[in-house]
Amino acid sequence: LGSAGRGGWEMAAWARAVRGLLLDISGVLYDSGGDGGVPIAGSVEAVRRIKASGLKLRFCTNETQATREKFVKKLQGMGFDISVDEVTAPAPAACRILKERSLRPHLLVHNDLVPEFAEIDKANPNCVVIGDAAENFTYANLNEAFRVLIGMEKPVLISLGRGRYYKETDGLKLDVGAYMKALEYACDVQAEVVGKPAKMFFESALAEMGVPPEQAIMIGDDIVNDVGGAQRCGMRALQVRTGKYRPCDENHPHVKPDAYVNNLAEAVDIILQQL
Amino acid sequence: LGSAGRGGWEMAAWARAVRGLLLDISGVLYDSGGDGGVPIAGSVEAVRRIKASGLKLRFCTNETQATREKFVKKLQGMGFDISVDEVTAPAPAACRILKERSLRPHLLVHNDLVPEFAEIDKANPNCVVIGDAAENFTYANLNEAFRVLIGMEKPVLISLGRGRYYKETDGLKLDVGAYMKALEYACDVQAEVVGKPAKMFFESALAEMGVPPEQAIMIGDDIVNDVGGAQRCGMRALQVRTGKYRPCDENHPHVKPDAYVNNLAEAVDIILQQL
Repeated sequence: LGSAGRGGWEMAAWARAVRGLLLDISGVLYDSGGDGGVPIAGSVEAVRRIKASGLKLRFCTNETQATREKFVKKLQGMGFDISVDEVTAPAPAACRILKERSLRPHLLVHNDLVPEFAEIDKANPNCVVIGDAAENFTYANLNEAFRVLIGMEKPVLISLGRGRYYKETDGLKLDVGAYMKALEYACDVQAEVVGKPAKMFFESALAEMGVPPEQAIMIGDDIVNDVGGAQRCGMRALQVRTGKYRPCDENHPHVKPDAYVNNLAEAVDIILQQL
Repeated sequence: LGSAGRGGWEMAAWARAVRGLLLDISGVLYDSGGDGGVPIAGSVEAVRRIKASGLKLRFCTNETQATREKFVKKLQGMGFDISVDEVTAPAPAACRILKERSLRPHLLVHNDLVPEFAEIDKANPNCVVIGDAAENFTYANLNEAFRVLIGMEKPVLISLGRGRYYKETDGLKLDVGAYMKALEYACDVQAEVVGKPAKMFFESALAEMGVPPEQAIMIGDDIVNDVGGAQRCGMRALQVRTGKYRPCDENHPHVKPDAYVNNLAEAVDIILQQL
Protein backbone atom coordinates (compact mmCIF):
# COMPACT_ATOMS: atom_id res chain seq x y z
CA LEU A 1 0.00 0.00 0.00
CA GLY A 2 1.68 3.19 -1.07
CA SER A 3 0.09 6.53 -1.79
CA ALA A 4 -3.28 6.40 -3.49
CA GLY A 5 -2.85 6.67 -7.21
CA ARG A 6 -5.59 7.12 -9.77
CA GLY A 7 -8.12 4.64 -8.54
CA GLY A 8 -5.86 2.32 -6.62
CA TRP A 9 -2.88 1.62 -4.39
CA GLU A 10 0.02 -0.65 -4.73
CA MET A 11 -0.52 -3.80 -2.74
CA ALA A 12 1.15 -4.07 0.68
CA ALA A 13 1.46 -6.94 3.09
CA TRP A 14 0.10 -4.96 6.04
CA ALA A 15 -3.08 -4.06 4.20
CA ARG A 16 -3.81 -7.75 3.55
CA ALA A 17 -3.20 -8.52 7.26
CA VAL A 18 -5.80 -6.04 8.48
CA ARG A 19 -8.35 -7.39 10.96
CA GLY A 20 -9.81 -4.24 12.43
CA LEU A 21 -10.54 -0.64 11.60
CA LEU A 22 -10.68 2.37 13.90
CA LEU A 23 -12.73 5.21 12.45
CA ASP A 24 -12.71 8.83 13.50
CA ILE A 25 -16.23 10.24 13.41
CA SER A 26 -16.38 13.98 12.73
CA GLY A 27 -14.93 14.77 9.32
CA VAL A 28 -14.91 11.09 8.33
CA LEU A 29 -18.53 9.97 8.80
CA TYR A 30 -20.10 13.43 8.68
CA ASP A 31 -19.41 17.15 8.73
CA SER A 32 -20.72 18.61 11.95
CA GLY A 33 -22.42 21.96 12.24
CA GLY A 34 -24.93 24.00 14.16
CA ASP A 35 -27.67 22.33 12.16
CA GLY A 36 -26.55 18.90 13.39
CA GLY A 37 -24.37 18.14 10.39
CA VAL A 38 -24.52 16.21 7.15
CA PRO A 39 -23.16 12.75 6.27
CA ILE A 40 -20.13 12.67 3.98
CA ALA A 41 -21.09 11.08 0.66
CA GLY A 42 -20.63 7.31 0.73
CA SER A 43 -19.84 7.05 4.45
CA VAL A 44 -23.16 5.53 5.59
CA GLU A 45 -22.76 2.75 3.05
CA ALA A 46 -19.04 2.37 3.85
CA VAL A 47 -19.77 1.62 7.54
CA ARG A 48 -22.33 -1.02 6.46
CA ARG A 49 -19.81 -2.62 4.12
CA ILE A 50 -17.16 -2.80 6.86
CA LYS A 51 -19.60 -4.56 9.18
CA ALA A 52 -20.65 -6.97 6.43
CA SER A 53 -16.99 -7.80 5.64
CA GLY A 54 -16.30 -9.37 9.03
CA LEU A 55 -13.61 -6.82 9.90
CA LYS A 56 -13.71 -5.60 13.49
CA LEU A 57 -14.79 -2.00 13.77
CA ARG A 58 -14.57 0.63 16.46
CA PHE A 59 -15.28 4.33 16.43
CA CYS A 60 -12.55 6.34 18.10
CA THR A 61 -13.51 9.96 18.62
CA ASN A 62 -12.50 13.01 20.58
CA GLU A 63 -16.13 14.16 20.49
CA THR A 64 -16.89 15.98 23.71
CA GLN A 65 -19.78 18.23 22.71
CA ALA A 66 -22.35 15.67 23.72
CA THR A 67 -22.76 12.44 25.65
CA ARG A 68 -22.10 9.30 23.61
CA GLU A 69 -25.80 8.51 23.82
CA LYS A 70 -26.68 11.82 22.23
CA PHE A 71 -24.22 11.90 19.36
CA VAL A 72 -24.73 8.23 18.55
CA LYS A 73 -28.44 8.97 18.27
CA LYS A 74 -27.63 11.84 15.90
CA LEU A 75 -25.50 9.54 13.74
CA GLN A 76 -28.20 6.88 13.71
CA GLY A 77 -30.59 9.59 12.55
CA MET A 78 -28.30 10.19 9.57
CA GLY A 79 -28.49 6.49 8.72
CA PHE A 80 -25.27 5.22 10.33
CA ASP A 81 -25.17 1.71 11.78
CA ILE A 82 -23.52 2.59 15.10
CA SER A 83 -24.20 1.91 18.77
CA VAL A 84 -22.91 3.47 22.00
CA ASP A 85 -20.82 0.47 22.98
CA GLU A 86 -18.87 0.66 19.71
CA VAL A 87 -17.55 4.11 20.61
CA THR A 88 -14.34 5.04 22.45
CA ALA A 89 -14.62 8.64 23.67
CA PRO A 90 -12.67 10.82 26.12
CA ALA A 91 -15.28 11.58 28.78
CA PRO A 92 -15.78 8.00 30.04
CA ALA A 93 -12.00 7.54 30.00
CA ALA A 94 -11.60 10.72 32.04
CA CYS A 95 -14.20 9.54 34.55
CA ARG A 96 -12.17 6.37 35.16
CA ILE A 97 -9.07 8.51 35.86
CA LEU A 98 -10.96 10.89 38.15
CA LYS A 99 -12.26 7.99 40.24
CA GLU A 100 -8.89 6.22 40.39
CA ARG A 101 -7.11 9.34 41.62
CA SER A 102 -9.91 10.80 43.81
CA LEU A 103 -10.00 13.94 41.68
CA ARG A 104 -12.98 16.28 41.95
CA PRO A 105 -13.25 18.26 38.73
CA HIS A 106 -14.24 21.80 37.95
CA LEU A 107 -15.77 21.22 34.51
CA LEU A 108 -15.20 23.52 31.53
CA VAL A 109 -17.14 21.45 29.00
CA HIS A 110 -20.12 21.61 26.70
CA ASN A 111 -23.46 21.59 28.55
CA ASP A 112 -24.42 18.44 26.69
CA LEU A 113 -21.37 16.58 28.03
CA VAL A 114 -22.12 17.25 31.70
CA PRO A 115 -24.30 14.11 32.15
CA GLU A 116 -21.21 11.93 31.46
CA PHE A 117 -19.85 13.22 34.79
CA ALA A 118 -23.09 12.68 36.73
CA GLU A 119 -21.56 10.20 39.16
CA ILE A 120 -18.41 12.18 39.84
CA ASP A 121 -18.03 14.24 43.02
CA LYS A 122 -17.50 17.84 41.94
CA ALA A 123 -17.55 19.58 45.34
CA ASN A 124 -14.45 21.57 46.36
CA PRO A 125 -12.58 20.90 43.06
CA ASN A 126 -8.97 19.75 43.02
CA CYS A 127 -8.57 19.64 39.23
CA VAL A 128 -9.97 21.21 36.07
CA VAL A 129 -11.35 19.11 33.20
CA ILE A 130 -11.54 20.94 29.88
CA GLY A 131 -13.38 19.66 26.81
CA ASP A 132 -14.57 21.26 23.60
CA ALA A 133 -16.90 23.62 25.47
CA ALA A 134 -17.79 25.59 22.30
CA GLU A 135 -20.17 28.41 23.29
CA ASN A 136 -19.20 27.77 26.92
CA PHE A 137 -15.70 29.08 26.10
CA THR A 138 -16.70 32.51 27.36
CA TYR A 139 -14.32 35.06 28.84
CA ALA A 140 -15.97 34.57 32.23
CA ASN A 141 -15.78 30.75 32.15
CA LEU A 142 -12.13 30.76 31.05
CA ASN A 143 -11.24 33.16 33.87
CA GLU A 144 -13.10 30.98 36.34
CA ALA A 145 -11.31 27.78 35.27
CA PHE A 146 -8.03 29.68 35.40
CA ARG A 147 -8.71 30.90 38.97
CA VAL A 148 -9.54 27.39 40.14
CA LEU A 149 -6.26 26.10 38.66
CA ILE A 150 -3.99 28.90 39.84
CA GLY A 151 -5.43 28.56 43.33
CA MET A 152 -4.13 24.97 43.63
CA GLU A 153 -0.78 24.23 45.14
CA LYS A 154 -0.08 21.88 42.24
CA PRO A 155 -2.55 22.58 39.41
CA VAL A 156 -4.02 19.49 37.70
CA LEU A 157 -5.46 20.11 34.24
CA ILE A 158 -7.07 17.24 32.33
CA SER A 159 -7.86 17.92 28.68
CA LEU A 160 -10.31 15.87 26.63
CA GLY A 161 -8.21 15.88 23.49
CA ARG A 162 -5.67 18.35 22.19
CA GLY A 163 -7.11 19.15 18.74
CA ARG A 164 -6.20 22.49 17.20
CA TYR A 165 -9.39 23.09 15.26
CA TYR A 166 -12.18 21.36 13.41
CA LYS A 167 -14.57 22.15 10.63
CA GLU A 168 -18.27 22.77 11.03
CA THR A 169 -20.68 23.56 8.24
CA ASP A 170 -20.29 27.27 9.04
CA GLY A 171 -16.49 27.23 9.12
CA LEU A 172 -13.41 26.26 11.11
CA LYS A 173 -13.62 26.40 14.90
CA LEU A 174 -10.91 26.42 17.55
CA ASP A 175 -10.80 23.07 19.32
CA VAL A 176 -10.10 22.23 22.96
CA GLY A 177 -6.33 22.10 22.40
CA ALA A 178 -6.15 25.86 21.82
CA TYR A 179 -7.90 26.59 25.12
CA MET A 180 -5.83 23.93 26.87
CA LYS A 181 -2.69 25.79 25.72
CA ALA A 182 -4.08 29.07 27.06
CA LEU A 183 -4.58 27.56 30.54
CA GLU A 184 -1.27 25.67 30.39
CA TYR A 185 0.56 28.90 29.67
CA ALA A 186 -1.32 30.99 32.23
CA CYS A 187 -0.72 28.47 35.03
CA ASP A 188 2.63 27.11 33.87
CA VAL A 189 1.35 23.54 33.92
CA GLN A 190 1.20 20.71 31.43
CA ALA A 191 -2.21 19.23 30.79
CA GLU A 192 -2.81 15.49 30.91
CA VAL A 193 -4.51 14.62 27.63
CA VAL A 194 -7.28 12.03 27.58
CA GLY A 195 -8.33 11.17 24.04
CA LYS A 196 -6.43 11.07 20.77
CA PRO A 197 -3.44 11.29 20.31
CA ALA A 198 -2.75 9.79 23.76
CA LYS A 199 -1.30 6.31 23.41
CA MET A 200 -3.42 4.89 26.25
CA PHE A 201 -6.56 6.02 24.47
CA PHE A 202 -5.76 4.18 21.22
CA GLU A 203 -4.64 1.15 23.21
CA SER A 204 -7.95 0.95 25.04
CA ALA A 205 -9.81 1.19 21.71
CA LEU A 206 -7.68 -1.64 20.32
CA ALA A 207 -8.26 -3.74 23.46
CA GLU A 208 -12.01 -3.21 23.21
CA MET A 209 -11.80 -4.39 19.59
CA GLY A 210 -9.48 -7.30 20.46
CA VAL A 211 -7.04 -6.57 17.63
CA PRO A 212 -3.29 -5.90 17.97
CA PRO A 213 -2.00 -2.60 16.55
CA GLU A 214 -0.17 -4.17 13.63
CA GLN A 215 -3.46 -5.62 12.37
CA ALA A 216 -5.43 -2.41 12.72
CA ILE A 217 -5.86 0.67 10.53
CA MET A 218 -6.92 4.09 11.80
CA ILE A 219 -8.86 6.26 9.35
CA GLY A 220 -9.11 9.94 10.22
CA ASP A 221 -9.05 13.50 8.94
CA ASP A 222 -6.59 14.86 11.54
CA ILE A 223 -2.97 14.48 10.52
CA VAL A 224 -1.61 14.82 14.05
CA ASN A 225 -4.27 13.41 16.39
CA ASP A 226 -5.57 10.57 14.20
CA VAL A 227 -2.68 9.67 11.93
CA GLY A 228 0.31 10.59 14.09
CA GLY A 229 -1.25 9.23 17.26
CA ALA A 230 -2.22 5.88 15.73
CA GLN A 231 1.17 5.42 14.09
CA ARG A 232 2.94 5.99 17.41
CA CYS A 233 0.88 3.06 18.72
CA GLY A 234 2.17 0.78 15.98
CA MET A 235 -0.94 1.04 13.79
CA ARG A 236 -1.14 2.04 10.14
CA ALA A 237 -3.15 5.17 9.47
CA LEU A 238 -4.90 6.69 6.47
CA GLN A 239 -5.83 10.33 6.11
CA VAL A 240 -9.08 11.15 4.33
CA ARG A 241 -9.33 14.29 2.23
CA THR A 242 -12.59 15.30 3.96
CA GLY A 243 -13.40 17.18 7.17
CA LYS A 244 -10.56 19.32 8.44
CA TYR A 245 -8.10 17.94 5.86
CA ARG A 246 -6.11 20.70 4.16
CA PRO A 247 -3.75 20.22 1.19
CA CYS A 248 -0.79 21.51 3.25
CA ASP A 249 -1.26 18.50 5.59
CA GLU A 250 0.51 16.52 2.85
CA ASN A 251 3.69 18.47 3.63
CA HIS A 252 3.48 17.95 7.38
CA PRO A 253 7.02 18.09 8.80
CA HIS A 254 6.66 15.10 11.15
CA VAL A 255 3.69 12.94 10.20
CA LYS A 256 3.19 10.99 7.00
CA PRO A 257 0.09 8.82 6.63
CA ASP A 258 0.53 5.31 5.26
CA ALA A 259 -1.77 6.46 2.46
CA TYR A 260 -4.19 9.19 1.47
CA VAL A 261 -7.76 8.49 0.41
CA ASN A 262 -10.34 10.91 -0.93
CA ASN A 263 -12.91 9.78 1.62
CA LEU A 264 -13.99 6.86 3.79
CA ALA A 265 -15.84 5.19 0.91
CA GLU A 266 -12.65 5.04 -1.15
CA ALA A 267 -10.67 3.70 1.82
CA VAL A 268 -13.18 0.91 2.35
CA ASP A 269 -13.26 0.07 -1.38
CA ILE A 270 -9.53 -0.41 -1.43
CA ILE A 271 -9.18 -2.17 1.93
CA LEU A 272 -11.91 -4.67 1.08
CA GLN A 273 -10.26 -5.38 -2.28
CA GLN A 274 -7.05 -6.39 -0.47
CA LEU A 275 -8.73 -8.97 1.77
CA LEU B 1 21.46 46.23 47.33
CA GLY B 2 20.48 42.77 48.43
CA SER B 3 17.11 41.53 49.44
CA ALA B 4 14.96 43.92 51.41
CA GLY B 5 15.47 43.37 55.10
CA ARG B 6 13.47 44.88 57.92
CA GLY B 7 13.31 48.47 56.84
CA GLY B 8 16.37 48.60 54.62
CA TRP B 9 18.71 47.06 52.07
CA GLU B 10 22.40 46.64 52.00
CA MET B 11 24.00 49.36 49.95
CA ALA B 12 25.03 48.57 46.38
CA ALA B 13 27.03 50.51 43.84
CA TRP B 14 24.39 50.18 41.13
CA ALA B 15 21.69 51.65 43.34
CA ARG B 16 23.80 54.77 43.92
CA ALA B 17 24.41 55.11 40.14
CA VAL B 18 20.71 55.18 39.27
CA ARG B 19 19.61 58.04 37.02
CA GLY B 20 16.22 56.85 35.79
CA LEU B 21 13.27 54.72 36.83
CA LEU B 22 10.86 52.77 34.66
CA LEU B 23 7.58 52.08 36.40
CA ASP B 24 4.98 49.53 35.50
CA ILE B 25 1.50 50.95 35.99
CA SER B 26 -1.14 48.33 36.82
CA GLY B 27 -0.31 46.60 40.09
CA VAL B 28 2.35 49.19 40.95
CA LEU B 29 0.52 52.53 40.80
CA TYR B 30 -2.97 51.13 41.21
CA ASP B 31 -5.09 47.99 41.23
CA SER B 32 -7.36 47.98 38.21
CA GLY B 33 -10.94 46.79 38.25
CA GLY B 34 -14.33 47.14 36.69
CA ASP B 35 -14.93 50.16 38.90
CA GLY B 36 -11.87 51.91 37.41
CA GLY B 37 -9.49 50.78 40.11
CA VAL B 38 -7.94 52.13 43.29
CA PRO B 39 -4.48 53.64 43.91
CA ILE B 40 -2.05 51.49 45.87
CA ALA B 41 -1.29 53.14 49.22
CA GLY B 42 1.65 55.54 48.95
CA SER B 43 2.02 55.34 45.15
CA VAL B 44 0.59 58.78 44.31
CA GLU B 45 3.06 60.39 46.69
CA ALA B 46 5.90 58.12 45.50
CA VAL B 47 5.54 59.34 41.91
CA ARG B 48 5.66 62.95 43.12
CA ARG B 49 8.80 62.25 45.13
CA ILE B 50 10.55 60.67 42.13
CA LYS B 51 9.80 63.74 40.02
CA ALA B 52 11.01 66.06 42.79
CA SER B 53 14.24 64.08 43.16
CA GLY B 54 15.53 64.89 39.68
CA LEU B 55 15.57 61.22 38.63
CA LYS B 56 14.29 60.59 35.10
CA LEU B 57 10.99 58.75 35.07
CA ARG B 58 9.06 56.85 32.46
CA PHE B 59 5.98 54.67 32.69
CA CYS B 60 6.37 51.39 30.81
CA THR B 61 3.12 49.49 30.52
CA ASN B 62 1.53 46.67 28.57
CA GLU B 63 -1.85 48.37 29.07
CA THR B 64 -3.98 47.73 26.00
CA GLN B 65 -7.48 48.04 27.39
CA ALA B 66 -7.64 51.73 26.55
CA THR B 67 -5.87 54.43 24.57
CA ARG B 68 -3.03 56.13 26.41
CA GLU B 69 -5.14 59.29 26.56
CA LYS B 70 -7.90 57.45 28.35
CA PHE B 71 -5.95 55.55 30.97
CA VAL B 72 -3.68 58.51 31.69
CA LYS B 73 -6.79 60.56 32.38
CA LYS B 74 -7.99 57.82 34.74
CA LEU B 75 -4.66 57.89 36.60
CA GLN B 76 -4.74 61.69 36.81
CA GLY B 77 -8.21 61.35 38.30
CA MET B 78 -6.68 59.19 41.06
CA GLY B 79 -4.18 61.95 41.79
CA PHE B 80 -1.16 60.70 39.82
CA ASP B 81 1.21 63.22 38.24
CA ILE B 82 1.45 61.57 34.78
CA SER B 83 1.07 62.70 31.17
CA VAL B 84 0.59 60.84 27.90
CA ASP B 85 4.09 61.59 26.60
CA GLU B 86 5.66 59.94 29.66
CA VAL B 87 4.10 56.58 28.75
CA THR B 88 5.57 53.78 26.61
CA ALA B 89 2.74 51.42 25.55
CA PRO B 90 2.38 48.60 23.00
CA ALA B 91 -0.27 49.99 20.64
CA PRO B 92 1.73 52.96 19.31
CA ALA B 93 4.76 50.67 18.94
CA ALA B 94 2.63 48.19 16.99
CA CYS B 95 1.34 50.95 14.70
CA ARG B 96 4.91 51.84 13.77
CA ILE B 97 5.58 48.19 12.85
CA LEU B 98 2.34 47.87 10.85
CA LYS B 99 3.22 50.95 8.80
CA GLU B 100 6.84 49.91 8.21
CA ARG B 101 5.81 46.47 6.94
CA SER B 102 2.60 47.46 5.11
CA LEU B 103 0.58 45.17 7.37
CA ARG B 104 -3.19 45.55 7.48
CA PRO B 105 -4.44 44.17 10.80
CA HIS B 106 -7.52 42.27 11.81
CA LEU B 107 -7.88 43.61 15.36
CA LEU B 108 -8.76 41.44 18.35
CA VAL B 109 -8.45 44.16 20.96
CA HIS B 110 -10.47 46.03 23.56
CA ASN B 111 -13.04 48.42 22.07
CA ASP B 112 -11.36 51.29 23.90
CA LEU B 113 -8.02 50.57 22.18
CA VAL B 114 -9.38 50.76 18.64
CA PRO B 115 -8.80 54.55 18.30
CA GLU B 116 -5.03 53.97 18.57
CA PHE B 117 -5.29 52.21 15.18
CA ALA B 118 -7.41 54.93 13.56
CA GLU B 119 -4.84 55.77 10.89
CA ILE B 120 -4.02 52.16 9.98
CA ASP B 121 -5.49 50.55 6.85
CA LYS B 122 -7.51 47.55 8.02
CA ALA B 123 -9.09 46.47 4.70
CA ASN B 124 -8.34 42.94 3.48
CA PRO B 125 -6.23 41.96 6.51
CA ASN B 126 -2.84 40.31 6.16
CA CYS B 127 -2.11 39.96 9.86
CA VAL B 128 -3.87 39.67 13.23
CA VAL B 129 -3.12 42.02 16.12
CA ILE B 130 -4.18 40.70 19.51
CA GLY B 131 -4.31 42.76 22.69
CA ASP B 132 -5.96 42.30 26.06
CA ALA B 133 -9.43 42.28 24.54
CA ALA B 134 -11.11 41.35 27.87
CA GLU B 135 -14.86 41.02 27.23
CA ASN B 136 -14.08 40.95 23.50
CA PHE B 137 -12.41 37.56 24.00
CA THR B 138 -15.62 35.82 23.01
CA TYR B 139 -15.84 32.40 21.40
CA ALA B 140 -17.01 34.02 18.16
CA ASN B 141 -14.23 36.64 18.09
CA LEU B 142 -11.53 34.07 18.79
CA ASN B 143 -12.82 31.84 16.01
CA GLU B 144 -12.89 34.80 13.64
CA ALA B 145 -9.29 35.83 14.40
CA PHE B 146 -8.28 32.18 14.00
CA ARG B 147 -9.97 31.93 10.59
CA VAL B 148 -8.24 35.08 9.36
CA LEU B 149 -4.87 33.67 10.46
CA ILE B 150 -5.31 30.13 9.17
CA GLY B 151 -6.44 31.53 5.82
CA MET B 152 -3.06 33.21 5.24
CA GLU B 153 -0.30 31.47 3.38
CA LYS B 154 2.11 32.56 6.11
CA PRO B 155 0.15 33.69 9.18
CA VAL B 156 1.41 36.84 10.93
CA LEU B 157 0.30 37.25 14.55
CA ILE B 158 1.32 40.37 16.48
CA SER B 159 0.64 40.28 20.21
CA LEU B 160 0.52 43.36 22.42
CA GLY B 161 2.32 41.77 25.33
CA ARG B 162 2.55 38.16 26.48
CA GLY B 163 1.33 38.46 30.06
CA ARG B 164 -0.19 35.37 31.64
CA TYR B 165 -2.70 37.06 33.91
CA TYR B 166 -3.30 40.16 35.96
CA LYS B 167 -5.27 41.12 39.02
CA GLU B 168 -8.36 43.25 39.01
CA THR B 169 -10.37 44.22 42.06
CA ASP B 170 -12.73 41.31 41.37
CA GLY B 171 -10.01 38.71 40.91
CA LEU B 172 -7.32 37.37 38.58
CA LYS B 173 -7.96 37.57 34.81
CA LEU B 174 -6.30 35.79 31.91
CA ASP B 175 -4.07 38.22 30.02
CA VAL B 176 -3.35 38.48 26.30
CA GLY B 177 -0.52 35.93 26.46
CA ALA B 178 -2.92 33.09 27.15
CA TYR B 179 -5.02 33.89 24.09
CA MET B 180 -1.87 34.45 22.05
CA LYS B 181 -0.81 30.90 22.95
CA ALA B 182 -4.20 29.56 21.88
CA LEU B 183 -3.85 31.12 18.42
CA GLU B 184 -0.17 30.18 18.14
CA TYR B 185 -1.02 26.56 18.80
CA ALA B 186 -4.07 26.46 16.54
CA CYS B 187 -2.18 27.98 13.58
CA ASP B 188 1.28 26.57 14.36
CA VAL B 189 2.83 30.05 14.29
CA GLN B 190 4.94 32.09 16.67
CA ALA B 191 3.57 35.50 17.60
CA GLU B 192 5.71 38.60 17.40
CA VAL B 193 5.41 40.27 20.78
CA VAL B 194 5.24 44.06 21.03
CA GLY B 195 5.43 45.28 24.63
CA LYS B 196 7.15 43.87 27.70
CA PRO B 197 9.20 41.62 27.86
CA ALA B 198 10.41 42.38 24.30
CA LYS B 199 13.89 43.85 24.38
CA MET B 200 13.09 46.49 21.74
CA PHE B 201 10.23 47.76 23.86
CA PHE B 202 12.40 48.38 26.94
CA GLU B 203 15.11 49.88 24.74
CA SER B 204 12.70 52.40 23.25
CA ALA B 205 11.52 53.37 26.75
CA LEU B 206 15.15 53.87 27.83
CA ALA B 207 15.90 55.92 24.70
CA GLU B 208 12.88 58.11 25.35
CA MET B 209 14.19 58.68 28.88
CA GLY B 210 17.79 59.18 27.69
CA VAL B 211 19.29 56.82 30.26
CA PRO B 212 21.47 53.76 29.57
CA PRO B 213 20.23 50.43 30.97
CA GLU B 214 22.93 50.16 33.63
CA GLN B 215 21.72 53.43 35.18
CA ALA B 216 18.03 52.51 35.14
CA ILE B 217 15.83 50.49 37.46
CA MET B 218 12.56 48.84 36.44
CA ILE B 219 9.91 48.50 39.15
CA GLY B 220 7.10 46.08 38.42
CA ASP B 221 4.79 43.41 39.81
CA ASP B 222 5.33 40.86 37.03
CA ILE B 223 8.28 38.55 37.67
CA VAL B 224 8.67 37.54 34.02
CA ASN B 225 7.53 40.50 31.93
CA ASP B 226 8.77 43.35 34.13
CA VAL B 227 11.68 41.88 36.07
CA GLY B 228 12.97 39.25 33.64
CA GLY B 229 12.49 41.45 30.58
CA ALA B 230 14.28 44.47 32.10
CA GLN B 231 17.16 42.35 33.38
CA ARG B 232 17.70 40.88 29.92
CA CYS B 233 18.16 44.47 28.71
CA GLY B 234 20.91 45.08 31.24
CA MET B 235 18.73 46.94 33.74
CA ARG B 236 18.25 46.20 37.43
CA ALA B 237 14.72 45.31 38.41
CA LEU B 238 12.70 45.31 41.63
CA GLN B 239 9.55 43.33 42.21
CA VAL B 240 6.84 44.93 44.33
CA ARG B 241 4.69 42.75 46.56
CA THR B 242 1.51 44.34 45.20
CA GLY B 243 -0.70 43.71 42.15
CA LYS B 244 -0.26 40.25 40.68
CA TYR B 245 2.68 39.42 42.96
CA ARG B 246 2.35 35.98 44.54
CA PRO B 247 4.65 34.56 47.24
CA CYS B 248 5.66 31.68 44.95
CA ASP B 249 7.18 34.25 42.55
CA GLU B 250 10.08 34.33 45.03
CA ASN B 251 10.92 30.75 44.00
CA HIS B 252 10.76 31.44 40.26
CA PRO B 253 13.07 28.95 38.51
CA HIS B 254 14.64 31.44 36.08
CA VAL B 255 14.11 35.02 37.26
CA LYS B 256 15.42 36.61 40.43
CA PRO B 257 14.75 40.33 41.04
CA ASP B 258 17.64 42.47 42.22
CA ALA B 259 15.47 43.13 45.27
CA TYR B 260 11.94 42.80 46.60
CA VAL B 261 10.02 45.74 48.01
CA ASN B 262 6.64 45.73 49.69
CA ASN B 263 5.34 48.44 47.38
CA LEU B 264 6.37 51.39 45.22
CA ALA B 265 6.51 53.74 48.19
CA GLU B 266 9.07 51.53 49.92
CA ALA B 267 11.13 51.26 46.73
CA VAL B 268 11.23 55.03 46.37
CA ASP B 269 12.13 55.53 50.06
CA ILE B 270 15.11 53.27 49.70
CA ILE B 271 16.26 54.46 46.27
CA LEU B 272 16.14 58.11 47.31
CA GLN B 273 18.14 57.28 50.46
CA GLN B 274 20.94 55.86 48.30
CA LEU B 275 21.33 58.97 46.14
